[in-house]
Amino acid sequence: MAGNTFGNFFKVATFGESHGVAIGGVIDGCPSGIELDLDAIQTELNRRKPGQSKIVTQRKEPDTVEFFSGIFEGKTTGTPIGFAIRNTNQKSHDYSHIKDSYRPSHADYVYDKKYGFRDYRGGGRSSARETASRVVAGAIAKQFLSNIKINAFVSQVGELKLNKNYTELNLEDTELNPVRCPDQEMAAKMESYIKEIKKEGDTIGGVITCVIQNVPIGLGEPAFDKLHAELGKAMLSINAVKGFEYGSGFNGVTMKGSAHNDQFNTDGTTKTNFSGGIQGGISNGMDIYFNVAFKPVATIIQPYETIDNKGDIVKTQGKGRHDPCVVPRAVPIVEAMAALVLADYTLINNSTK
Amino acid sequence: MAGNTFGNFFKVATFGESHGVAIGGVIDGCPSGIELDLDAIQTELNRRKPGQSKIVTQRKEPDTVEFFSGIFEGKTTGTPIGFAIRNTNQKSHDYSHIKDSYRPSHADYVYDKKYGFRDYRGGGRSSARETASRVVAGAIAKQFLSNIKINAFVSQVGELKLNKNYTELNLEDTELNPVRCPDQEMAAKMESYIKEIKKEGDTIGGVITCVIQNVPIGLGEPAFDKLHAELGKAMLSINAVKGFEYGSGFNGVTMKGSAHNDQFNTDGTTKTNFSGGIQGGISNGMDIYFNVAFKPVATIIQPYETIDNKGDIVKTQGKGRHDPCVVPRAVPIVEAMAALVLADYTLINNSTK
Amino acid sequence: MAGNTFGNFFKVATFGESHGVAIGGVIDGCPSGIELDLDAIQTELNRRKPGQSKIVTQRKEPDTVEFFSGIFEGKTTGTPIGFAIRNTNQKSHDYSHIKDSYRPSHADYVYDKKYGFRDYRGGGRSSARETASRVVAGAIAKQFLSNIKINAFVSQVGELKLNKNYTELNLEDTELNPVRCPDQEMAAKMESYIKEIKKEGDTIGGVITCVIQNVPIGLGEPAFDKLHAELGKAMLSINAVKGFEYGSGFNGVTMKGSAHNDQFNTDGTTKTNFSGGIQGGISNGMDIYFNVAFKPVATIIQPYETIDNKGDIVKTQGKGRHDPCVVPRAVPIVEAMAALVLADYTLINNSTK
Amino acid sequence: MAGNTFGNFFKVATFGESHGVAIGGVIDGCPSGIELDLDAIQTELNRRKPGQSKIVTQRKEPDTVEFFSGIFEGKTTGTPIGFAIRNTNQKSHDYSHIKDSYRPSHADYVYDKKYGFRDYRGGGRSSARETASRVVAGAIAKQFLSNIKINAFVSQVGELKLNKNYTELNLEDTELNPVRCPDQEMAAKMESYIKEIKKEGDTIGGVITCVIQNVPIGLGEPAFDKLHAELGKAMLSINAVKGFEYGSGFNGVTMKGSAHNDQFNTDGTTKTNFSGGIQGGISNGMDIYFNVAFKPVATIIQPYETIDNKGDIVKTQGKGRHDPCVVPRAVPIVEAMAALVLADYTLINNSTK
Repeated sequence: MAGNTFGNFFKVATFGESHGVAIGGVIDGCPSGIELDLDAIQTELNRRKPGQSKIVTQRKEPDTVEFFSGIFEGKTTGTPIGFAIRNTNQKSHDYSHIKDSYRPSHADYVYDKKYGFRDYRGGGRSSARETASRVVAGAIAKQFLSNIKINAFVSQVGELKLNKNYTELNLEDTELNPVRCPDQEMAAKMESYIKEIKKEGDTIGGVITCVIQNVPIGLGEPAFDKLHAELGKAMLSINAVKGFEYGSGFNGVTMKGSAHNDQFNTDGTTKTNFSGGIQGGISNGMDIYFNVAFKPVATIIQPYETIDNKGDIVKTQGKGRHDPCVVPRAVPIVEAMAALVLADYTLINNSTK
Repeated sequence: MAGNTFGNFFKVATFGESHGVAIGGVIDGCPSGIELDLDAIQTELNRRKPGQSKIVTQRKEPDTVEFFSGIFEGKTTGTPIGFAIRNTNQKSHDYSHIKDSYRPSHADYVYDKKYGFRDYRGGGRSSARETASRVVAGAIAKQFLSNIKINAFVSQVGELKLNKNYTELNLEDTELNPVRCPDQEMAAKMESYIKEIKKEGDTIGGVITCVIQNVPIGLGEPAFDKLHAELGKAMLSINAVKGFEYGSGFNGVTMKGSAHNDQFNTDGTTKTNFSGGIQGGISNGMDIYFNVAFKPVATIIQPYETIDNKGDIVKTQGKGRHDPCVVPRAVPIVEAMAALVLADYTLINNSTK
Repeated sequence: MAGNTFGNFFKVATFGESHGVAIGGVIDGCPSGIELDLDAIQTELNRRKPGQSKIVTQRKEPDTVEFFSGIFEGKTTGTPIGFAIRNTNQKSHDYSHIKDSYRPSHADYVYDKKYGFRDYRGGGRSSARETASRVVAGAIAKQFLSNIKINAFVSQVGELKLNKNYTELNLEDTELNPVRCPDQEMAAKMESYIKEIKKEGDTIGGVITCVIQNVPIGLGEPAFDKLHAELGKAMLSINAVKGFEYGSGFNGVTMKGSAHNDQFNTDGTTKTNFSGGIQGGISNGMDIYFNVAFKPVATIIQPYETIDNKGDIVKTQGKGRHDPCVVPRAVPIVEAMAALVLADYTLINNSTK
Repeated sequence: MAGNTFGNFFKVATFGESHGVAIGGVIDGCPSGIELDLDAIQTELNRRKPGQSKIVTQRKEPDTVEFFSGIFEGKTTGTPIGFAIRNTNQKSHDYSHIKDSYRPSHADYVYDKKYGFRDYRGGGRSSARETASRVVAGAIAKQFLSNIKINAFVSQVGELKLNKNYTELNLEDTELNPVRCPDQEMAAKMESYIKEIKKEGDTIGGVITCVIQNVPIGLGEPAFDKLHAELGKAMLSINAVKGFEYGSGFNGVTMKGSAHNDQFNTDGTTKTNFSGGIQGGISNGMDIYFNVAFKPVATIIQPYETIDNKGDIVKTQGKGRHDPCVVPRAVPIVEAMAALVLADYTLINNSTK
């Protein structure tokens, strides 16, 4: 497996399993001279952290990041930034019931088949815990991209869909509720729905919308590394993601070209933005926006039947502390991955200047 | 720009503009000893070719591929396969009206901004003509992957949506009609709708569904290079694509985990397949299936206003021979990109055996 | 095999066997707006061409390059530059004697073992013919690097060693003789020695020295991609190269630090340059210089015994037109590879500006 | 800077400065199921460690490695292996005299120019301390390559050159003396010479020879990623290295082809091995051997004049504990880098099986 490195210029290699010693990573390619606000990095981690509200898993993980290198007198030095977050909440016994059996719609089965065996103490590398490393790296990328504004929010939970365009919302209000939906009325509905789901020991899917503003014209590397193609890959690499659409997305399918084409203003901006800020794979300076679909997480607190590694049927019972809906905690992860893509493409674009 | 290389081990670098001398590419990493059926490669090109039916652009391009290297006595040698397709239909005068002006929702504007100038004789590198190189490379990847079956088809044109699961369709029937929809009744409706759109000089979007069968267990490289993440990137890199979803996709958002989880049979297969053949980013041996959303193409045969490179408004008129709906010709492109991803991931997976 | 791509941002993928249809490549990442002097590219090819003098192989290959893309109105467009050189001199019968047998110190044996079979009509991919593609790409890189001067020359043939520092030579005089040694007296000796070797049907090794001037400070990416490490790899990838040293090189081994350290002038230049223009893997603005050792080429025009693919001993006779000493024709190849490395590292260095 | 990642399949990203919190890395791509002997890894680190004998720097660094991930029940899991080594000996005050001035032939000057500022507390990222991370990764690669034997040794210190072929030496005897020269007589001479140099406060260069045995046929990826080219790059990336030669190397230059060609035995082995185990860039199953030239390290314990960052001349005095000759401690580093290259090329070669 060599798929744990993301980016070409602003490159991140991550490591770590849910029940190992630590998770972390190396950022190779962060430019020198960036003043780092370490508190802001921890704030991003806290947005992803378990136990932050009643609608997320109640596991306790302090998620404190330690930096090893690449920062001197408060600034990046241009050398690689190594970091780790210790795993402090490794209750292996919680997971002993899954040692030899395969949880449905988890990665247990394929890891055993691909690697011959696996760290059975929880999700291992396929645990969403891995995304904490992404949040650290993304938080640094955000600081590098200080002019670019990246705001993600929850726009759908189950059937509860926010039918407003992002331009009608105040994206500063996203953090006012535990769901991370900037429309407070909808957020309240979503919150009580998630609580209901939790009571059932079940889970539910959701959608995160992300808006990126103040993007300079010219980011994106056709033909294969179009900006939205890399954003799509970045989002699809997040645990539980099943779909990605940008600009008009799947709805654009039903439109005619005469309606879908974005007419120019004389300053090069466009009157509409069905393109989603990207044309021919290159940013055009308009807002970039996209949706990311998350499935209901597979861990449910219900009895179920499954198979073990001998192919025998076993009866078991999901237990522990799980996320009834993953999207509230995934908001900072979506932002982090967007930041990593933009940082990388900014450097690539600079390279030919 | 260095984004014209796709894949890591089954690697393809492509080149070429719509109105240059030729398009083509280099395949670096194709294993040795594969008996190549060159006719089959040309057949794939013909499926993408302009002028193949009344519902596609009537441009005449023979699209004959010439191979330069890497093939000896009918077999791949393990050395790079260079190839080119001459551009024979370069009527620059058709495009003189767009030399200094920017067509809405095309890449003209961003290319000028990013590169300082552009080959104004048509779409240049951002033309869909570029995808012919992908089809050649993908056709070779398909032959390498001889056990894996990749079938794409048109499942939606505008509002006309095929509400059948792929398992209810005979995928062998896709080529029986010019739309490439395996349901002949729906295909007829789509065909007449596209003709209507064409008469208006307008365009319409569509969806292509792709099904991949007989995939071995174990393809995919978490955390970042999950199989579906790379498939998503590959699809999003195709011109006019706005969205990608696999397995339950955006619909999975509204499901509960208890319903979405794919229960195991004792042989490791699953009773349902909301996972879409991929769990934790790794193929589990079930069918992989995904949808790709295409916007209505931007070239319309109608008068319109736009701006020129001085920011002045110009009135112009779309002309020439265009595709009223891009999805029928995009079916082999989707298959080609899927084949390239699977070939690459097959080699990566082999590496640790 | 996926080793036919060089560079990360100024990236070149090459293809082609000695007896296939054509050789060529794709340059992906060349910045836009560079005015290309196509004659200068052909001039570089002519410096590498067979038949250019009596001391090189007398094969006739016109080596005319055709560009397919990426150039418009005389300038690079920022899109990939595809190109090919047709093989016009494919006399397969010259090579029939080697179809089933392995020439000593050639790549025949290992290609058969690695790939299962090979294009037996000559060296195939391992032929030095492959380097013509490098010369084309390098000639474009040179034009991108217009301020940087790259001059290679022959400094040793067999025991005939030019015991002068490059600063004592007029590097403009290199092309005045067929050996490409800027010291005309030594060149004459080398020339007659090579003729003698040729008469014997034998071959002899040599050394090429390369000097790079006007390099900006800051090129090089420690820890692994130090500038000299990548230059070394580039040179070692050229056929027949056995060694690389830069700055003080192997002679530096016997020096003491107190003598070897390059003392600074107040403007940051150094009084001596044992460092060879690179410190800590990063260019310091002083001249970069290095030596490249070439073995005697393996093709000799003498009878010899070897084995065939069944392990039986066969008697055979080297024939055809061969290079008695490879270094005169390798001078432009060394320059081309140096140019490719510098172009790539220039883009990488730019990326963080 | 993004040059801190080495390898394509067996990939290592390293981080860390000499006076930061820790150094370490991430190994991404190590196959699963390898039983790891952690003591053997520490043994390799101890071979590189300061203070191990009187002829190396007397700094005290325990160099204890902590593994964070990727290992479970004593075996690799196929997921990334994160690790770190704490820096325990960070006496910044030792280095205050170099805060604003540039030590000759160090990387101080170029780092300041390239990155705008630097961690002035010692060599920072350009310190040889960075190589400890390589040794950890290489030790794991060695265990993956259990059949391949990699032995490096000191073959020259200053003018003291071991004029024996490696086949005449017992490579098991390398560790019997602190110089790491397997010829005990020569080792004794080298040791007293290094002590003499140390007394002068000076330094001296040296050569390390490396021999790799039991290499399978077929490793190497022409045209650019020839096995020896990557080995060369790997060696040249080590601090203080000025040259690399393999097989006949620079001496091969003076040989005729008729003498240099390695004649086959009927089993495919060769009677001589001037090729150095690699033909056409691909291993042929014979021993691989190469030489690596190290300059005298730049830190000398003598008074010297240099410039500061304002271009003013400053008088200063080298102090602290330095290595009078770097080669004894560099032996495990050379082996580690060789192991990393071979592990990577083994996986690449496997990929097409």
